[in-house]
Amino acid sequence: MSEPAHNVLYAQAGGVTAVINASAAGVIEMARRHPEKFGKIYAAVNGIVGVLEETLTDTTQFTEQMLDQLKTQPGAAFQSCRFDLDTLAENPEQYQRVLAVFRQYNIGYFFYNGGNGSMVTAQKVADYCTEKGHPVTCIGVAKTIDNDLALSHCSPGFGSAAKYIATSLLEATLDLISMHNTSTKFFALEAMGRNAGWLTIAGGLIKTQIPDAPLIVLPAERAFSQQAFLDKVNHFIEHKGYCVCVVSEGLTNEDGSYISIENIEHTHSHDYTQLGGVARTLSNLVAQTFNCKTHSAVPDYLQRSASHIVSETDWQMAYRAGKAAVQAALDGLHGVLPTIQVLSEQPLVWRYQNVDLVEVADLEKRVPDSFICDDGMDITQAALDYLKPLIKGERPIPYQYGLPAIAPIQYQCIKQQLPPYKVVK
Amino acid sequence: MSEPAHNVLYAQAGGVTAVINASAAGVIEMARRHPEKFGKIYAAVNGIVGVLEETLTDTTQFTEQMLDQLKTQPGAAFQSCRFDLDTLAENPEQYQRVLAVFRQYNIGYFFYNGGNGSMVTAQKVADYCTEKGHPVTCIGVAKTIDNDLALSHCSPGFGSAAKYIATSLLEATLDLISMHNTSTKFFALEAMGRNAGWLTIAGGLIKTQIPDAPLIVLPAERAFSQQAFLDKVNHFIEHKGYCVCVVSEGLTNEDGSYISIENIEHTHSHDYTQLGGVARTLSNLVAQTFNCKTHSAVPDYLQRSASHIVSETDWQMAYRAGKAAVQAALDGLHGVLPTIQVLSEQPLVWRYQNVDLVEVADLEKRVPDSFICDDGMDITQAALDYLKPLIKGERPIPYQYGLPAIAPIQYQCIKQQLPPYKVVK
Repeated sequence: MSEPAHNVLYAQAGGVTAVINASAAGVIEMARRHPEKFGKIYAAVNGIVGVLEETLTDTTQFTEQMLDQLKTQPGAAFQSCRFDLDTLAENPEQYQRVLAVFRQYNIGYFFYNGGNGSMVTAQKVADYCTEKGHPVTCIGVAKTIDNDLALSHCSPGFGSAAKYIATSLLEATLDLISMHNTSTKFFALEAMGRNAGWLTIAGGLIKTQIPDAPLIVLPAERAFSQQAFLDKVNHFIEHKGYCVCVVSEGLTNEDGSYISIENIEHTHSHDYTQLGGVARTLSNLVAQTFNCKTHSAVPDYLQRSASHIVSETDWQMAYRAGKAAVQAALDGLHGVLPTIQVLSEQPLVWRYQNVDLVEVADLEKRVPDSFICDDGMDITQAALDYLKPLIKGERPIPYQYGLPAIAPIQYQCIKQQLPPYKVVK
Repeated sequence: MSEPAHNVLYAQAGGVTAVINASAAGVIEMARRHPEKFGKIYAAVNGIVGVLEETLTDTTQFTEQMLDQLKTQPGAAFQSCRFDLDTLAENPEQYQRVLAVFRQYNIGYFFYNGGNGSMVTAQKVADYCTEKGHPVTCIGVAKTIDNDLALSHCSPGFGSAAKYIATSLLEATLDLISMHNTSTKFFALEAMGRNAGWLTIAGGLIKTQIPDAPLIVLPAERAFSQQAFLDKVNHFIEHKGYCVCVVSEGLTNEDGSYISIENIEHTHSHDYTQLGGVARTLSNLVAQTFNCKTHSAVPDYLQRSASHIVSETDWQMAYRAGKAAVQAALDGLHGVLPTIQVLSEQPLVWRYQNVDLVEVADLEKRVPDSFICDDGMDITQAALDYLKPLIKGERPIPYQYGLPAIAPIQYQCIKQQLPPYKVVK
């Protein structure tokens, strides 16, 4: 006779993507298929904070229709926290609280859909519970628009943000082609990415439609050289009449300082420097240098929430990340992260393969030299070959009243059963 | 025996829209149906500048397939100039040149797809030609994302930009709902519109999906009150945990000065003050006042070029604007602009009706008081009722390599036959 099934807990953490909820749907659907192994499937509301504060939801209430909604909804349907546990030595109380919650709800499987740092913390929590006599399996579910996850061909969430950036830059380029003769001659688009220029190089994809586009690509991996930049802008304006540019929000000067319109760097209570403004800085620089009209755009969150233009390839990666995590648990693994391994480049054939969470935790994948041209301001054919399959395919979504039908899904939280616990953020 | 057909000239001018080329297709298709009236259909490349410089293209080369491409392409396929003729008294030579070009190509019909100011100039040119013994009919074709065209229910181009703004704000709102608990609590989206807040109020459409959204709408029609704004932000953060905001780039202080991050206003050779930065200014203000994380986005040109999310209603309006202009010429009219007249509000039933160009030229339609709530920071039900039908419907577009298939259409220009003429810009 088999032992009684343990319950599942799924949680979301860190910056959202347009497809993170597809991973949630993947976890729920796959776990439902194995009632012999998995009992109830809970989701924490607000990541690890929701675990600590015992704000949980029982996904049994999710009908097929709600799961379909989940699959097209941007943001994190279960809320995503920017909060990491302290170390066990620093704050044993936090770990005891997680254990108490896991015991209360008979959690045996913890699927954590977050950054790799958070996922390692989740694993440590699971290990702690196991040591205390309540065995918990922890599996990571990858997601990040930044694409800086190591040991994985790419990250779920990146392809859709890349498609958004490339589409936006392509459309703006047609605007400049139309009007540069008597109006704007330079346009800069600012892409997210503090240290990694993956979304910036995605702007280079406009070359699949306009091979000779007068494009400057400034990834965070290269320090900014003002003179070389202005020389290239000048060349393009002289020869093509206009120039378009895509730039990493985290672009730095040679001395490592961020390029920004603001000299006063805003810091808030989490002591996190707010980036943004580099596109406008470049735009003003070009306007002043060449006495011409310039424009800039900063899509900011729009690029990571654009449910209306997700990449089908990326969506599949996100959905299958959830399923692969559950499969890893079925296979009896613990402390692993399913990552994307490529079997064939053209056409792209890939599968999930597990790596140890601790192995990827401290690695950050930046854009390799082979993807950036010698002048540091354009992308290579190798980069195009890498990027093209990731933005491939469109996923139709339902509309209501002319807008994506993405009203937040309403679900009930479970009545709290443990003593109240308030996280200090 | 009927007199020989005169030729047609079509031109685009001013800021582009995502659907201006649908108007071009409407003109070409409708004129082709009436060979008894219209001879060759030319397009000027770069608006009135293209007329003066004799850079013309014969649209006979446009196959059905090219016309289909035209119907989904953002920007201005024939290039759009920001250039107006001088007055006849100031610069008679310009008028003589246009007459020479019109005579050379036997132009009898001039369809001008531009701002109303430019269209009146076009009419004056046509009148001049007629006086000099070369009769020319001039008809306007409306377009502007700003929706500030008077005597028309709305403007072709507005509905698609409105759909883009509302979709973007809705998606970003889901981001904030996901993450505000431990991260960003305020987000501002900057919409185009120097004096008219039409695109800003379009952000209010997110209420069709999230009726109780903690939303602040700041149209250019109302001066900014810092205290009232901060009070409302504070209220929303306290009661809902977050606040989203959509703001006109042209928002001003009580004294009429623009709110901007930059104290140095950049002016270029056309002496045009560059707006932009108000969303970031508000975002920084909230961050500093409430010591919380904030973000902002500036879509800039993306909102007027987003071919991938046009409104089907708007597209039909643009396409039929072109056809209505040709119909006006068939009806023997001159100096008119087909404008949108509403026959029924719900569901929206509309048709084109001609008004005299001179009648609309100096009128600017701003957002009426009845569309803005008493506190000046939200929109009314009347505004929602007006906006909803304009963003209705989606128009699927072809994709290639994961991007909208909008590579610029290649066409040949006619070999110049007149002495060279260079416009000084």
